[in-house]
Amino acid sequence: MNHFLSIEDDIDGDTLHEECGVFGILGHPDAATLTALGLHALQHRGQEAAGIVSFDGQRFHSERRMGLVGDHYTDPATLARLPGDRSIGHVRYSTTGETILRNVQPLFAELEVGGIAIAHNGNFTNGLTMRRQLIADGAICQSTSDTEVVLHLIARSKHPSSSDRFIDAIHQMEGGYSMLAMTRTKLIAARDPIGIRPLVMGELDGKPIFCSETCALDIIGAKYIRDVENGEVVICEIQPDGSITVDARKPEVSRPERLCLFEYVYFARPDSVVGGRNVYVARKNMGINLAKEAPIEADVVVPVPDGGTPAAIGYAQASGIPFELGIIRNHYVGRTFIEPTQQIRAFGVKLKHSANRAIIEGKRVVLVDDSIVRGTTSVKIVQMIRDAGAREVHIRVASPMIYHPDFYGIDTPDADKLLANQYTSLKAMCDFIGADSLEFLSIDGLYRAVGGSPRDRAQPQFTDHYFTGDYPTRLLDRESTSNVRKLSVLASNG
Amino acid sequence: MNHFLSIEDDIDGDTLHEECGVFGILGHPDAATLTALGLHALQHRGQEAAGIVSFDGQRFHSERRMGLVGDHYTDPATLARLPGDRSIGHVRYSTTGETILRNVQPLFAELEVGGIAIAHNGNFTNGLTMRRQLIADGAICQSTSDTEVVLHLIARSKHPSSSDRFIDAIHQMEGGYSMLAMTRTKLIAARDPIGIRPLVMGELDGKPIFCSETCALDIIGAKYIRDVENGEVVICEIQPDGSITVDARKPEVSRPERLCLFEYVYFARPDSVVGGRNVYVARKNMGINLAKEAPIEADVVVPVPDGGTPAAIGYAQASGIPFELGIIRNHYVGRTFIEPTQQIRAFGVKLKHSANRAIIEGKRVVLVDDSIVRGTTSVKIVQMIRDAGAREVHIRVASPMIYHPDFYGIDTPDADKLLANQYTSLKAMCDFIGADSLEFLSIDGLYRAVGGSPRDRAQPQFTDHYFTGDYPTRLLDRESTSNVRKLSVLASNG
Amino acid sequence: MNHFLSIEDDIDGDTLHEECGVFGILGHPDAATLTALGLHALQHRGQEAAGIVSFDGQRFHSERRMGLVGDHYTDPATLARLPGDRSIGHVRYSTTGETILRNVQPLFAELEVGGIAIAHNGNFTNGLTMRRQLIADGAICQSTSDTEVVLHLIARSKHPSSSDRFIDAIHQMEGGYSMLAMTRTKLIAARDPIGIRPLVMGELDGKPIFCSETCALDIIGAKYIRDVENGEVVICEIQPDGSITVDARKPEVSRPERLCLFEYVYFARPDSVVGGRNVYVARKNMGINLAKEAPIEADVVVPVPDGGTPAAIGYAQASGIPFELGIIRNHYVGRTFIEPTQQIRAFGVKLKHSANRAIIEGKRVVLVDDSIVRGTTSVKIVQMIRDAGAREVHIRVASPMIYHPDFYGIDTPDADKLLANQYTSLKAMCDFIGADSLEFLSIDGLYRAVGGSPRDRAQPQFTDHYFTGDYPTRLLDRESTSNVRKLSVLASNG
Amino acid sequence: MNHFLSIEDDIDGDTLHEECGVFGILGHPDAATLTALGLHALQHRGQEAAGIVSFDGQRFHSERRMGLVGDHYTDPATLARLPGDRSIGHVRYSTTGETILRNVQPLFAELEVGGIAIAHNGNFTNGLTMRRQLIADGAICQSTSDTEVVLHLIARSKHPSSSDRFIDAIHQMEGGYSMLAMTRTKLIAARDPIGIRPLVMGELDGKPIFCSETCALDIIGAKYIRDVENGEVVICEIQPDGSITVDARKPEVSRPERLCLFEYVYFARPDSVVGGRNVYVARKNMGINLAKEAPIEADVVVPVPDGGTPAAIGYAQASGIPFELGIIRNHYVGRTFIEPTQQIRAFGVKLKHSANRAIIEGKRVVLVDDSIVRGTTSVKIVQMIRDAGAREVHIRVASPMIYHPDFYGIDTPDADKLLANQYTSLKAMCDFIGADSLEFLSIDGLYRAVGGSPRDRAQPQFTDHYFTGDYPTRLLDRESTSNVRKLSVLASNG
Repeated sequence: MNHFLSIEDDIDGDTLHEECGVFGILGHPDAATLTALGLHALQHRGQEAAGIVSFDGQRFHSERRMGLVGDHYTDPATLARLPGDRSIGHVRYSTTGETILRNVQPLFAELEVGGIAIAHNGNFTNGLTMRRQLIADGAICQSTSDTEVVLHLIARSKHPSSSDRFIDAIHQMEGGYSMLAMTRTKLIAARDPIGIRPLVMGELDGKPIFCSETCALDIIGAKYIRDVENGEVVICEIQPDGSITVDARKPEVSRPERLCLFEYVYFARPDSVVGGRNVYVARKNMGINLAKEAPIEADVVVPVPDGGTPAAIGYAQASGIPFELGIIRNHYVGRTFIEPTQQIRAFGVKLKHSANRAIIEGKRVVLVDDSIVRGTTSVKIVQMIRDAGAREVHIRVASPMIYHPDFYGIDTPDADKLLANQYTSLKAMCDFIGADSLEFLSIDGLYRAVGGSPRDRAQPQFTDHYFTGDYPTRLLDRESTSNVRKLSVLASNG
Repeated sequence: MNHFLSIEDDIDGDTLHEECGVFGILGHPDAATLTALGLHALQHRGQEAAGIVSFDGQRFHSERRMGLVGDHYTDPATLARLPGDRSIGHVRYSTTGETILRNVQPLFAELEVGGIAIAHNGNFTNGLTMRRQLIADGAICQSTSDTEVVLHLIARSKHPSSSDRFIDAIHQMEGGYSMLAMTRTKLIAARDPIGIRPLVMGELDGKPIFCSETCALDIIGAKYIRDVENGEVVICEIQPDGSITVDARKPEVSRPERLCLFEYVYFARPDSVVGGRNVYVARKNMGINLAKEAPIEADVVVPVPDGGTPAAIGYAQASGIPFELGIIRNHYVGRTFIEPTQQIRAFGVKLKHSANRAIIEGKRVVLVDDSIVRGTTSVKIVQMIRDAGAREVHIRVASPMIYHPDFYGIDTPDADKLLANQYTSLKAMCDFIGADSLEFLSIDGLYRAVGGSPRDRAQPQFTDHYFTGDYPTRLLDRESTSNVRKLSVLASNG
Repeated sequence: MNHFLSIEDDIDGDTLHEECGVFGILGHPDAATLTALGLHALQHRGQEAAGIVSFDGQRFHSERRMGLVGDHYTDPATLARLPGDRSIGHVRYSTTGETILRNVQPLFAELEVGGIAIAHNGNFTNGLTMRRQLIADGAICQSTSDTEVVLHLIARSKHPSSSDRFIDAIHQMEGGYSMLAMTRTKLIAARDPIGIRPLVMGELDGKPIFCSETCALDIIGAKYIRDVENGEVVICEIQPDGSITVDARKPEVSRPERLCLFEYVYFARPDSVVGGRNVYVARKNMGINLAKEAPIEADVVVPVPDGGTPAAIGYAQASGIPFELGIIRNHYVGRTFIEPTQQIRAFGVKLKHSANRAIIEGKRVVLVDDSIVRGTTSVKIVQMIRDAGAREVHIRVASPMIYHPDFYGIDTPDADKLLANQYTSLKAMCDFIGADSLEFLSIDGLYRAVGGSPRDRAQPQFTDHYFTGDYPTRLLDRESTSNVRKLSVLASNG
Repeated sequence: MNHFLSIEDDIDGDTLHEECGVFGILGHPDAATLTALGLHALQHRGQEAAGIVSFDGQRFHSERRMGLVGDHYTDPATLARLPGDRSIGHVRYSTTGETILRNVQPLFAELEVGGIAIAHNGNFTNGLTMRRQLIADGAICQSTSDTEVVLHLIARSKHPSSSDRFIDAIHQMEGGYSMLAMTRTKLIAARDPIGIRPLVMGELDGKPIFCSETCALDIIGAKYIRDVENGEVVICEIQPDGSITVDARKPEVSRPERLCLFEYVYFARPDSVVGGRNVYVARKNMGINLAKEAPIEADVVVPVPDGGTPAAIGYAQASGIPFELGIIRNHYVGRTFIEPTQQIRAFGVKLKHSANRAIIEGKRVVLVDDSIVRGTTSVKIVQMIRDAGAREVHIRVASPMIYHPDFYGIDTPDADKLLANQYTSLKAMCDFIGADSLEFLSIDGLYRAVGGSPRDRAQPQFTDHYFTGDYPTRLLDRESTSNVRKLSVLASNG
């Protein structure tokens, strides 16, 4: 499995998707262009839509589009419609709310104290509950996005300053989020109390930047300063003299950070530094640990591209078995595979991957993948490798088995669709997949690969409920689901 | 001048535009198709966008599009996305609020008591004032349309029933409006206290219909029942047994109706019956009265098509001078003349009109037009007629001089751009236009043509402020304009 | 019936369509813009596609689009892609050949002597025969348009000069045509031996112009010079010093001109002068003659808009019965009514026309139409008039009955679909249509209205086979149809 | 450098592009779908346009589109417009001829003997010469594609059978080509006399398939049969009984095959077998030979993704230096980067690649690339690696220096833009690029990597003129360029 949108992902739903990436900059003359470039670097966090809001001192300007950053925001005319020295942007893969244009972020509201735009990566566990309260109180919700709930809370807050209103609003929300807000003079960044989703601070030409991953700093040559801390709100403000003040508000009682492990396993770009740790190195470590935990005699180590490649390099180095590109990936996957024909569906995985027979034939193959969700793709890949003449196929997965759904911004299948819940033994899973052997990295192996030490059961260092069932927050919407009257939500095409 | 969108209108702004037309039907299996046809018949009231919302018993469905009804709503796939036996629709020519998709009506809100969609023709004179109060109170305005203000007032009303909330909301608004609302079970129609904008009630197969003009009933073979009265709210509701109840609520103290005279002069379709009077007959009467008030010796009566045609027929019959098509209209005016080239601009009026030389040459021509706004088109038409060899050109205008702007849904140029305000004498205007003589119908002549009797100064029978300065309501937004902080309204493209 | 593309035309096929209009200009700096304006004036001759080819001294430039002139050629960017001081253009309603982009004219070919573009109004009666010969001889036909056949004949001609090649080519073709060609230095105009289709010559700023009708001269303020004569080829050439030479080549033995009567009855714009006769005056004369031939006692004369209006004015003046707009036309007919829903189809004629009840109710109505093809529209209009309360409905048609198909550029239904061939008596037709009486103008009445004298049976002054069966040329393709192997023609979408 | 369309390629033109890939199948009920899938697998050979022509026993059907296969041909509606059991398809990167829709292949012609469609990969060295002869002989060229020349030669051939006409036509052409043709009953494949471009034959369910590379067989599970030989024409024909005959015509005097070396270095997909040799293995061998020829002491071997990856794996294995992903590729490159803004241009290479600092910092890096064309991308990549903290940067290129342009279907920059022609010493090139050392694989090293033995100077085993200047055919167009009058070729947008 790997982290790029593709045909068989759409067909089988055998993948995880993350909701979003965010980027914001204050005080730079090329604000919108830099934001577009930053979003381009964060494109792996959301491919369905991208939006940018800028402020030019007088007016806010908004461009929001379905599709890739590179499809729209490289057009000079589009960038020209985003004047001003400050802007925030967002890339989206929809989890909550249909992906229609009015759901695309950043969202904007005209407040009594002036306009505010917000963009958000993550998910609220009390979003629906809050929405119902707001509607009962006379609010009009135009989108089906949870982010709009925050906007309403800001609008209704009685605090005079926009930053206090923002803080007031997010303190009413629960879940995992990294959020940016832009007012007429401020760029505000906030991270949830335990820091499930990443958010970093950088600077370019002395101007502050916030973004989901460091790769968005690298693309524009900006300097990494530090991570926004869990529970922290950082308020940057342009002063009348043009200088920028930075006001970091930390919670009085800070809880330990628990970054989402899946950022390391799968979501973040390999060249990003998340929580101070290089992602590629972490993944290679997963492969090294996997080679130690689950060795096998074989002729070649073959990654399932592109997600499994770093772990496969680690596995090969640790095991001494040669690393080879036994699966070739077709990069030209078209944009719109809605309703594929039955014929095309039947070709499944081959549209994206093909076996490299000269490398596979007659060999004992170790296939290294980053994770297994439903396992349907693995079945096809194993079959493809066997069809190419492999003598043996051994699957090594660089993360533990996934048992539990996520509610913090990762789009997971229903629990009963997860491979780990469908079979009671590793042997049964292996048979289903059709491999000669199947092994997963242990939870401690994963913790060591990322953080250097095994899982602290009393105080786990990371968010890991998909593997362990240990949810780090309340799940309010979920608890009250049975009572919720279905909204008569509008089906809209304009 | 006439009432179809055209090149030179866009170029010169020498025209009046009305905001909207509305149509709604309750309980008919072909609700959306009938609404599309009704809107097609009302297309002359707004050509920039059209929207329909239907309800299928479970969900509301919305289709909103820029462009003509016939461009989008004749597609079976579009109509199929509007299932249900009730729907309301709207055609729009934007006055207040940019014409962007999120401003296109009907607007929709999810309320605690269920969804509601509203569509509206007219304008509020306190829209901006109310909007500022709402924002101060924490409301989020997504569109720049005044109609959204009503939606917020409905959402915030404390009444338990949706119809009471609707009435509560419109009672807070001032101005001229005809409004439709649709809830899960109700179709509601309302007209402002003095009935500036028209709204009629009809029925088809026993199912109630409301629409701006009777021509929308005719197109679907529906029967006209009566006008919705000024100040009245009519609530039609589907009962559990499928029957429909009609509850007409009239104001306790009713004021006399004052329909907008411009509906007769220019806006309404000639075959419509507005306020019980056939529009074509009223216009022909204007021509007859004009012939009496401003006779001239001439060879041919030539209408400025198409608006001037009924009055020209009346003028010709009353004067005995032959009616001839001396100006030919080109019906093929393309859709998008944004940014015409300088070359094309120079050809101006000829893109739409051409003189019919064989009819004009050597003749004394009486040109009959419905109204004159800025006069720039008249200049070009007179020149065109002279170029075609006319011996004399006499302009007869079938309405009085326009001095004052409108605030009830008609888009008028700034007062100082109006021809009547640029010249102090009829002679000077005539010289500007280049005609041999120029005469306007008197205000009493117009009143007699429409209603049979002259203007009652104590109690005018119609809304006529553009001619007289007598505004029939307060102009709250206008009075407080100086105090209003400009909204930092978003410029949005998505 | 009338000559604007509309819904019920598409639905019922109850109309005639003409293939094309052409415009060309040589030596003017605004060539492409003037061509676009000229084509806009000729839009009534073809609404499905429009194309312009210009030459800038180095390269030919081509823009061809489906849709109206005003939809595309008012965009400065489009005109900017058509540089140069000479250009020819074309508007098309497809008769022969599907309407797909590669069939849109002007067509272009690279010849040994340089490029050539051609545009053509009319139809060849030996087009298919010639096409088969060319294919047998190794030619590759890219379009299904007959015009391409001419291009191949030009390419294969052995004459050294492009104008001689052009003449060589058209002398091999039979039928009715008005054709323009543009080479690197020349603008060439040609009309078929008996001049079935119109073509006029004008000038602007001393530069020659050719176009289908004079209205295309009027729109740009150009001066009419003369008609291109039947059988004539006019060759205008820019000389090295910038001067323009005009070489008019007339046939040695000239045959009398026989212009198509339907240009007067229906196709040409009322303000055009065709064959020296104003079209509006001719149509009004038809109405006057009709009033004399077929008088009736009635209360109002009502035109079927817009085609019947001039004749109705004539009928009213001659009969003394008042002319009234008893039918109102909806000008907002959407662009694309492909596959209308059954529901919309059922509303038929009402989408375009509506009865003006106040004028009709209780009256004896004379409905004046320009022509009747299949009669299906007439049935609906009579029903609509009756529904509006008419006491009597008398149809008067300002042209004779149509019995025979056309092969010279008018798209006619199959002969057995024509009303005149479906019923053996006028009474039966009248019953079918549902009128109280039905009368057609006589062929002599039509000849007198257009040319002043009755039909000369020995030497008819006009082309009139649709009324009389007297085809003015051989019909080669038709004669050999039975032998023709069907082409394996490509169905193409790109 | 690598073989996927990307931003910096477009910006700098620092890449080679190949013209085309072809696919054809005869007698299979899913012909069009299989062709679409085959073209998807060949997408790396051309990303600008894709077309398919099918034949359903009655008519040919054509769909041609700008863009990727996956953008258009996954739509069931598109495939449904391509009925029939035989079809040929084409993906295109334009070299000769602008990329406009009418140039997109397959091209089609109606012949006297029936229709024929052709699709072609390669380029003719006498295409312009032949085109001029055809035009002189009266042919009309609609496209600017050389393939149309073949179509004309087929149309003009006097042979009665379509296959003989096809052979007659290609025998008049010189250059490198692999060509497919489809008639009503036949699928024909041909390869140029020395087999510069690849073409293989396979079968699925007993039905013959021809395609550019074996990866197009793999994707649909088809079996590889053999390569079409150089100079061979294979004619497959459906017989009346449904059986398929295969008639392979080989040249009487066969010349040795000389496949284009760049297929191995860069164009072909790594999993394809070209000329009997696995491409991945050949590339890995290039890396192994490079490690032997140009060793260096270093800490990591880093591929320039994706083109340099196989050679980097080989280099790492042969040298014992660890292979690491030091450069991360961004797969989300938008579609349309025409006219990038100056700001975006300045970010250049970073839009596609980013350095993985954790791997690079403080290290001695061996960068392995597949080839260097202009070197401008290399400059940026070296800078990026240095910015990430590399201690030393050593470039190893897995192919020789490029000195000469190609005329057989590879789009090369002008010779004076090639890095090898701009500097006279390896040292100067290395300085320009900014590396610590720079080494290229020797021509013999390349020959050995691909074919196992060094270059046979008397009889080179491969086409290698870009490295050696040894062109394998005459270059007729090039020789006569000075005499050629420029065509007045049409600039067309419709």
